Amino acid sequence: MKRLEDYLSALKPVHPDKAERAQRRMDGQTKPRGSLGRLEELVRFVASVQDTAEPVLNRKIIFTLAGDHGIVEEGVSAYPMSVTAQMVRNFLNGGAGVNVLARHAGCEVVVVDMGVHADLRLEGLVSRKIASGTANFTRGPAMTREQAERSVVTGIELALERDFDVIGTGDMGIGNTTPSSAVASAFMDIDPGEITGRGTGVDDEGLRRKTDAIRRGMAKNNPDPKDPLDVLAKVGGFEIGGIAGLIIGAGLKNRPVVVDGYISTAGALVAVALCPPVSDYFIISHLSAEKGHDRIAAFLNKRPLIDLGMRLGEGTGAALAIGIMDGALKLYYDMATFDEAGVDKES
Amino acid sequence: MKRLEDYLSALKPVHPDKAERAQRRMDGQTKPRGSLGRLEELVRFVASVQDTAEPVLNRKIIFTLAGDHGIVEEGVSAYPMSVTAQMVRNFLNGGAGVNVLARHAGCEVVVVDMGVHADLRLEGLVSRKIASGTANFTRGPAMTREQAERSVVTGIELALERDFDVIGTGDMGIGNTTPSSAVASAFMDIDPGEITGRGTGVDDEGLRRKTDAIRRGMAKNNPDPKDPLDVLAKVGGFEIGGIAGLIIGAGLKNRPVVVDGYISTAGALVAVALCPPVSDYFIISHLSAEKGHDRIAAFLNKRPLIDLGMRLGEGTGAALAIGIMDGALKLYYDMATFDEAGVDKES
Repeated sequence: MKRLEDYLSALKPVHPDKAERAQRRMDGQTKPRGSLGRLEELVRFVASVQDTAEPVLNRKIIFTLAGDHGIVEEGVSAYPMSVTAQMVRNFLNGGAGVNVLARHAGCEVVVVDMGVHADLRLEGLVSRKIASGTANFTRGPAMTREQAERSVVTGIELALERDFDVIGTGDMGIGNTTPSSAVASAFMDIDPGEITGRGTGVDDEGLRRKTDAIRRGMAKNNPDPKDPLDVLAKVGGFEIGGIAGLIIGAGLKNRPVVVDGYISTAGALVAVALCPPVSDYFIISHLSAEKGHDRIAAFLNKRPLIDLGMRLGEGTGAALAIGIMDGALKLYYDMATFDEAGVDKES
Repeated sequence: MKRLEDYLSALKPVHPDKAERAQRRMDGQTKPRGSLGRLEELVRFVASVQDTAEPVLNRKIIFTLAGDHGIVEEGVSAYPMSVTAQMVRNFLNGGAGVNVLARHAGCEVVVVDMGVHADLRLEGLVSRKIASGTANFTRGPAMTREQAERSVVTGIELALERDFDVIGTGDMGIGNTTPSSAVASAFMDIDPGEITGRGTGVDDEGLRRKTDAIRRGMAKNNPDPKDPLDVLAKVGGFEIGGIAGLIIGAGLKNRPVVVDGYISTAGALVAVALCPPVSDYFIISHLSAEKGHDRIAAFLNKRPLIDLGMRLGEGTGAALAIGIMDGALKLYYDMATFDEAGVDKES
């Protein structure tokens, strides 16, 4: 296994040339300039990441990374830990939300066990288990520093091993809004209460328990926001590290990343903290209904593409956004120019 | 031709039964309740309009209605009137934005000449010309009351004559943000300056001319917001009346309508003013970048589904939203239930 440092140092910011060339082409198409708004922005984004004025989205993959969380002991989730493994089976059987929306958008779903608390030997499952769930971070670090590094490198290599033109990130892990809020409050240096919501739907008492558990975990571990692996190790999760790695790995291949919702955005925070130029390589697909997602996205200088009040995770928002991105690329290739269509330009 | 009154009196509000039944089904699927947000809202909407807990979206049509506007004489648009007819040819050749996004969403595009200022005899064009463009409404009414009624009835009958499960509305007409702003300011009883934007992209001076032309037209004609046909006749347009009719016609067939952007929303204002229960039958697809669209949507008690900074019209926003609606229906049918997947429910 290569060391994380070797990967991080290889990633460069994107060059704006190809995006500008793509924009010039769009400016000659039969529409007022700029009138396709963020659809034009999506074309520029894909062109700049793929470093070509002829970007393509033929092969599309949603990576759904699963992991369990020791913090569930603190009563932070409405669902039992057993659901993580059960949902992995559901993904492999094609019956979950992400499967349906991925099919709708023409994406393959790759399901990865990053650290589920169950011995899963299932056909189609990519097994990259770091450990059988994280430890309860109110009592000590969620994982070792070595495990944190390994989860990110695993994500990088998941991307490097495969062929694709775009990826979406996704997650499954009962309790994983809790480490996501902890990771975000560490990097953003704010009280967890400001960005901790109800996850899959805890009641007021559950929300108090959850926020309190994060505060205790932060006090116990004192994660250092200047040291991203320290944050990931102390209060993160294996799928969060894996998502950070996926984003970096896709960047290393010049492939765009569509980040899903709350948990994936926590992964993006880790990725950007480890490697600031990776920010050029991803967009955030949707604004989650989870409290604080708007602030975390703003902290990353990103404006989520759509806002449909979703809070399911799995990669569902990424799949929808990839469908829109696909439409944007079709416009880029299939719309007539003023000259071709014999349409008069503006006076 | 039936009279407008006969159509309007036949439209009843939707019944919530089927939407509730659809929601119960969604509540048993493998996701936290409500976690698909507005996708669940879309399923309830289609179920309530189609009046069945087994709604379908097999046949999808975008109607792109074209018309010209005498007000263009006042220098309100960045493009010459000739572009309306040229774009109709572009639609029929499949090269415009709406064609590309409609194909992406599996929609047919029906192009209708409601009042283009050109003698168009083109294969595939549905000719329902009311007149060869409206009159300049700074000098008198844009059309007669009889023409206003005929444009709405034409729209109703365009819908009644065809088979579909959902329609999107769309428009083409150089200058047509101007009558749209005028219609909205009449119904909303506000100064046109508050909801008049740059349309296809006029400069500051053009925006002043445009706002001034609307104010003069309102003063000259004094449209009566209590009399929707009076508003449409005095400051509207043929495609705006046609869009109002399409919405009502689809409602009469229990078929949902996805309203496009700024111009289509002006059509929706006319439809709701003529027939308040029709509000149950449509959603607004997207928030246009055109100034004031947010206020007009709020006046109609609608929250646009997406906000991508688009301002092209034609039905482009409707096509994108229909793609999302299609995804929502697929979730409804294809996601496993907790029982089917053997997933534990919340504790």
